Amino acid sequence: MISKQELLQHWLGHRALTAKTIAAFPEDALFNFSVGGMRTFAQMIAELLALSGEGLQELATGEQKPFNEAVPATEKQALLDLWNKNTAAITSMVDKIHETDIHRSVKLFGQYEFSVQNHLLYFIDNEVHHRAQAFVYLRALGVEPPPFWLRD
Amino acid sequence: MISKQELLQHWLGHRALTAKTIAAFPEDALFNFSVGGMRTFAQMIAELLALSGEGLQELATGEQKPFNEAVPATEKQALLDLWNKNTAAITSMVDKIHETDIHRSVKLFGQYEFSVQNHLLYFIDNEVHHRAQAFVYLRALGVEPPPFWLRD
Repeated sequence: MISKQELLQHWLGHRALTAKTIAAFPEDALFNFSVGGMRTFAQMIAELLALSGEGLQELATGEQKPFNEAVPATEKQALLDLWNKNTAAITSMVDKIHETDIHRSVKLFGQYEFSVQNHLLYFIDNEVHHRAQAFVYLRALGVEPPPFWLRD
Repeated sequence: MISKQELLQHWLGHRALTAKTIAAFPEDALFNFSVGGMRTFAQMIAELLALSGEGLQELATGEQKPFNEAVPATEKQALLDLWNKNTAAITSMVDKIHETDIHRSVKLFGQYEFSVQNHLLYFIDNEVHHRAQAFVYLRALGVEPPPFWLRD
């Protein structure tokens, strides 16, 4: 139904939209603003980077690193650079995952046990989920988010 | 990488979480509350039902109906009943889609032209997207959303 290459292209489309969402934030609001006591978008991005960085690397190579959700930058451009650098690494990491390993169970970060397939779907869903919350933050700030359906 | 049956199960997990999200809303807020001038969650649910109802039916049978985003209920329980009824129909509609048709291009509602595969992925993404926005609404209302990772 969906090949590995198709899933990768789908994910890369989401990554591009998330990059535009980071870029749309006012500098301060990215690190300080939230609604209803939730995390800032920068904190959510830190979680997403932990999954698509160290998490994906563990799926691809088996090498386990700690789950680190600390915000890795204090300026928007630096966070965006880290995001784009990680996006470039995603393609080579997904290439290393063999399609025969898709149903293999992996206890990611020593904590979260699912199949490789479900981990990948979770990574993508979780990005869509938090980016959508950032869309609400942007609306609350009076900023128009990028179009949801545009993925380039 | 992902079979049709696996994608369906993945979607049904999201449907269950969205049902719990509707149920978590205070009766009035579901139809009246929003943040930053956005739509209410009931209005978003109406859009999701148009896609997973008439939209999915068009993918499965070719029968084209108008895109109707009117909110189809005025009470939470009635909206939830419509959601659950539509969820039950999803399985039989997805069953009708042949895997050989996955890359066939369909101009849904006479407007949106993508492959069957991309339409299905969009339906799921769009549900995750709007439900995540409802999570922010719930937090702003002081209500704890259901856990994102629980899908049953």
